[in-house]
Amino acid sequence: MSRWEPNARGRLQQSAMELYIEHGYEQTTVAEIAKRAGLTERTFFRHFADKREVLFAGAGPLQELFVNTVADAPATATPMDAVAAALDTVAADFKGRLESARQRQTVIRANAELQERELIKLATLAAALTEALRQRGASDLTARLAAEAGIAVFKIAFERWVGDTDQRELSQHIRELLDELKAVTAGG
Amino acid sequence: MSRWEPNARGRLQQSAMELYIEHGYEQTTVAEIAKRAGLTERTFFRHFADKREVLFAGAGPLQELFVNTVADAPATATPMDAVAAALDTVAADFKGRLESARQRQTVIRANAELQERELIKLATLAAALTEALRQRGASDLTARLAAEAGIAVFKIAFERWVGDTDQRELSQHIRELLDELKAVTAGG
Repeated sequence: MSRWEPNARGRLQQSAMELYIEHGYEQTTVAEIAKRAGLTERTFFRHFADKREVLFAGAGPLQELFVNTVADAPATATPMDAVAAALDTVAADFKGRLESARQRQTVIRANAELQERELIKLATLAAALTEALRQRGASDLTARLAAEAGIAVFKIAFERWVGDTDQRELSQHIRELLDELKAVTAGG
Repeated sequence: MSRWEPNARGRLQQSAMELYIEHGYEQTTVAEIAKRAGLTERTFFRHFADKREVLFAGAGPLQELFVNTVADAPATATPMDAVAAALDTVAADFKGRLESARQRQTVIRANAELQERELIKLATLAAALTEALRQRGASDLTARLAAEAGIAVFKIAFERWVGDTDQRELSQHIRELLDELKAVTAGG
């Protein structure tokens, strides 16, 4: 085993996803993931705390992208404008990653513990987004509502994108959902 | 111990809440809860599966109230109208229960596992609400958005009601949040 391991992280992620889909998440061990990637367990643990983290390693960067885009939105942007800008940036970041998003979704749907972890991820994201909107001067109430609405749009758009057969981009789903949200709440 | 145990369920709930607040949720045992209520452990398990269920026994009836009110809304009501009607009914049901809602919130906030369970409860509620709206003929997209928006309003309104010092009713918080949601999404 060479100490130089090109793209070890990416290889571990791909091997893990393959095994989770072939044998199930519960049944897969870290040893098997490392073996399939042609790496050692030690290398695995240099990149991930455990086999669950392989599926949630993107949560931190995703949150950063949301928060930074909201922070960088022009001062004149409304809270919902800032959230929409963040959703656009996030959608652009997912471009070309439909297949891996689908695989991840398949694994998470099959396991209750992973679904819970996904709910926590989204709740944490909503809290971070709320704080970013408050920092821009939004009231607590407005910040919370805009953040929750934004995360709801993200969640539904993502599920539609992953389940979609007509090859629309995530950004199109997001745009459609933001428009529909406006129509739905106006009609209440 | 008499076999006739008046309001055993309510006494167990009250004793559990007191102990969770005094000693912490983790530290409290079912034996202690039963003892404080002047009942046996066996009686406890006739009413609750475990000490966590004491805090989540209301989830089923709450979901029923949401779903039934949506189903009973006039055919002319928009999805968001139906959701607003359900929120009003739920708010009426919580009337006079501020103190116990506060106690429950205190216990849940102090424990990560309970917070996760609360997230699952809300996600399950959103799914049930989505299905109830679909049954009324709403499209999948509209149903999901209206349900997620409604649950977000419920969650934020509930937290504001419980944390509020100016004694406004839950129904007032809900009304304010529905109006603000309309304004927030219109401004996006």
